[in-house]
Amino acid sequence: MNKTAVLLYPQFSEYELSVALSILMQGEKPVVTVGLNQSPIKGEASLTCLPDETLDSINIHEIDSLLLPGCMNIFDLEEESKYIEFIKQVASQENIIMASISSSPLLLAKAGILKNKKYTVGLLEKDRDDSGVFEKANYVDELVVQDGNIITAFGSGFIPFGIAFGKALQLTFSEGWYRK
Amino acid sequence: MNKTAVLLYPQFSEYELSVALSILMQGEKPVVTVGLNQSPIKGEASLTCLPDETLDSINIHEIDSLLLPGCMNIFDLEEESKYIEFIKQVASQENIIMASISSSPLLLAKAGILKNKKYTVGLLEKDRDDSGVFEKANYVDELVVQDGNIITAFGSGFIPFGIAFGKALQLTFSEGWYRK
Repeated sequence: MNKTAVLLYPQFSEYELSVALSILMQGEKPVVTVGLNQSPIKGEASLTCLPDETLDSINIHEIDSLLLPGCMNIFDLEEESKYIEFIKQVASQENIIMASISSSPLLLAKAGILKNKKYTVGLLEKDRDDSGVFEKANYVDELVVQDGNIITAFGSGFIPFGIAFGKALQLTFSEGWYRK
Repeated sequence: MNKTAVLLYPQFSEYELSVALSILMQGEKPVVTVGLNQSPIKGEASLTCLPDETLDSINIHEIDSLLLPGCMNIFDLEEESKYIEFIKQVASQENIIMASISSSPLLLAKAGILKNKKYTVGLLEKDRDDSGVFEKANYVDELVVQDGNIITAFGSGFIPFGIAFGKALQLTFSEGWYRK
């Protein structure tokens, strides 16, 4: 089975990723975390993580899906262009499923992935407008929005976001577990 | 403000920790992750973490609270006695708040912390009985159980568990955020 790549960047949100990661584990989906380089990456809530691969080292042909957590300083992401180039490369393959939560759809928009797609994002309207990369008409004010293979979500939608991702990947998992 | 120590061990559950960690961040509570040694620690759902401190290096007098995630192989924890000794040392201080989810109350029970306390734990009755460390009469079949400064929870109770921990620490945070 091909892998889900999980992008990690400084200040990434652990809880936004956590249910999606747990569902990938339930579904026995191989996961690879990917960082800008081999340096440790500290999340917003204090977990310091070591990525399995880097944007340069990972074999994108082993990837069938991409998971992006939000991060507080998404507008100041160091070497942002490398993440965007990576996202474009992954998206150039067939049938890639992308799940992007909170502020991270900004990176998808910058990579051109949200063109003509319904989406949501955890950014204020002013910030969406100022960024100049979001199509205003396609913004949907819902917790989780799926348009084809692209899933976007508001940060607090982390549970239905993980569930939508697991279903898009056709994994077998207990959907009700996280809602008890 | 004193710190919350977060124990990390191989196969720790990321999602079980994640909402509690996010609430600590909201409440601006300093957090220190603690491992057996300085080696990277891989969670059950693929995040490889570097602990901030080790069981030997951490200054327990800086700690006022302890957070324990579950882990799948809690019965085979390498160098278990070191974790238990650490828990005992922390508990010997005054007014320590402990939050322990899923299988991890086994460590509290082995450290004698659950004596005469109401508790829950994400272990089967047979495993609880076989362990010989749980007081049968004090087991409570609820998602989250708080008895004084000790909070225990079933894994799927990770959201109310985090909320109970934040309240016990008297933090300011948005409780409803994770339930949208």
